[in-house]
Amino acid sequence: MRQETEKIANAEQNMHATTEPGYVVGVDLGGTNLRLALADMSGKILARWSSSTAAIRGPEAVIQLMSRGVKSMLHEVAAPPEALRSVGIGVPGVTDVDNGIVIATSYLMGWREVPLSALVEKEMNVPVIVDNDVNMAAIGEQEFGNAKDAKDFVFLAIGTGIGAGIVINGKLYRGSSWAAGEIGYMLVPGAAEIPAKSDEPGALESMIGGEGIKNQWQKLGNEKGSTTPTEFNATEIFDRAVDGNPHAKALLRQSATMLAQAIYNISLVLNCPLFVLGGTVGMHPALCDSAQKMLDQWIVLGSPRLVRSTLGTDAQLLGSIRAALEIAQACIIPSAVCAKPC
Amino acid sequence: MRQETEKIANAEQNMHATTEPGYVVGVDLGGTNLRLALADMSGKILARWSSSTAAIRGPEAVIQLMSRGVKSMLHEVAAPPEALRSVGIGVPGVTDVDNGIVIATSYLMGWREVPLSALVEKEMNVPVIVDNDVNMAAIGEQEFGNAKDAKDFVFLAIGTGIGAGIVINGKLYRGSSWAAGEIGYMLVPGAAEIPAKSDEPGALESMIGGEGIKNQWQKLGNEKGSTTPTEFNATEIFDRAVDGNPHAKALLRQSATMLAQAIYNISLVLNCPLFVLGGTVGMHPALCDSAQKMLDQWIVLGSPRLVRSTLGTDAQLLGSIRAALEIAQACIIPSAVCAKPC
Repeated sequence: MRQETEKIANAEQNMHATTEPGYVVGVDLGGTNLRLALADMSGKILARWSSSTAAIRGPEAVIQLMSRGVKSMLHEVAAPPEALRSVGIGVPGVTDVDNGIVIATSYLMGWREVPLSALVEKEMNVPVIVDNDVNMAAIGEQEFGNAKDAKDFVFLAIGTGIGAGIVINGKLYRGSSWAAGEIGYMLVPGAAEIPAKSDEPGALESMIGGEGIKNQWQKLGNEKGSTTPTEFNATEIFDRAVDGNPHAKALLRQSATMLAQAIYNISLVLNCPLFVLGGTVGMHPALCDSAQKMLDQWIVLGSPRLVRSTLGTDAQLLGSIRAALEIAQACIIPSAVCAKPC
Repeated sequence: MRQETEKIANAEQNMHATTEPGYVVGVDLGGTNLRLALADMSGKILARWSSSTAAIRGPEAVIQLMSRGVKSMLHEVAAPPEALRSVGIGVPGVTDVDNGIVIATSYLMGWREVPLSALVEKEMNVPVIVDNDVNMAAIGEQEFGNAKDAKDFVFLAIGTGIGAGIVINGKLYRGSSWAAGEIGYMLVPGAAEIPAKSDEPGALESMIGGEGIKNQWQKLGNEKGSTTPTEFNATEIFDRAVDGNPHAKALLRQSATMLAQAIYNISLVLNCPLFVLGGTVGMHPALCDSAQKMLDQWIVLGSPRLVRSTLGTDAQLLGSIRAALEIAQACIIPSAVCAKPC
């Protein structure tokens, strides 16, 4: 059992057991944007802050940006710097949660083995927890979203990238080397037959990720010599499918088929009854409905239920806040195991 | 947490804590054969018994056959009937372990909701544990085979059917409705694009299960008008591939590709470092080597390790014995939770 996850479990038992004043920060560190939210110790969001990360990619620069955001939010609620209790950060890559290390990511100019937790702790002098962003979103969905009270579920994020956050028996399952749920590389009928390299979009992602759908739409537009505008994004294309555009309908059907195939394959392994679909592509109602219909046809008994996220991009911010609250509580309660600076 | 699995966990802590005399029986209940082994309380096999189930498929008749086998083995070791402590049974279907019910199987003339545990307990008057046969084999591999001391691994059985026994953090993972690991239905490139019905061989199974390979071989023989004998089974075909037969080599390559694709997909979900291959097809060295080479090419870092089972068909007998020992210990040790007749 890993130290950090044990620590969270310990903290969970003691959740809501303190009225200690203070604030925590949840961070969504993306390839193009850095989003922050400040919450009180009940998890209520009191302030938000965001900035582009397009030109700033090195860990030190990102941390400086993060620090500026935290100061700005504390100022906004008229709180002193020492009122900050902890920080939770979701990152778009494989992350060693015990040691707070971003092992690898294809975003942020390809960070490798970045000790993000230690770096942010040094800067802000509070305990920090770092996890994969899809895992953080799964925590958010479990606490505040459509997976509330679900013991076993999979959160499926389909945006530019595709990933799964797996909750088994109420707890995140992260795999033996922190890479569980990297299903953007899944091999399904109709996609590539051998896996992509780890720094390239995977077989499934290149077909039903946002960029993949856009690329196929552009090809269709060009091939047919049609006057259909080619600059639409995935959700706009799906909207056109709903409006009856035949090319868009074909693309929606193909995307839904591959999504249903991927969910079917995950279900065979995990036997999980609930999938929450998030991400800009995954949240489109036509995609979800179409995939659900296919699964219901394929599986007569016990087809998994698909629901769209109602939290949207807030899922991972809320998950990061919850994770931050847990390590803050672990520091406040003497019996909890905590090796982080309190 | 399920009662039965908790009971096993309790018993595990107390394993080897008693020198109580007696015997347990492990059962491998297959579609064509019933195999039994009698072991002492240290798990050492002292007698074996087997019979065909080809003409006898109803639960009552199977239980009578089982009872005859148990009596025969007890007689063989000169032990009285009351020396029997417990029975563990592996069945080829989805099984509710808590309640000892065979929910569904495509073998045994399609048993549905058979309360096997209660029926055998009534017949033999000892506690009985029933689980999926691949899960029982995974327990056997974990205790005595190539997964000894492995915390996380997948046991992959490839014979007539295909199934996976998933061990996470040292414990079997059975899924929310006992159907985890039913990967014979997995959708991979080159196989069927929509799932088979639950009483038919799945997409993956129909390609790389024993019958699937045989069918493809027969087609090849007939199509080419070749003089190649068509009656070979899968392992004989793979042997011919090793000897250089080009058709057999092509079929081996295709089978290894699909196996590697399936293992790759499972790895994406579970991030599991070790796969033990069992079953008559899965244990063929050429298949294992070929799939391992593909995975190593596909995954530069952290490719899962494939090993062949050294226990063979004994894996599920040994697993059933171990499961039987655990419930026997749970009955002997007063502190253990046990609702079964002791």
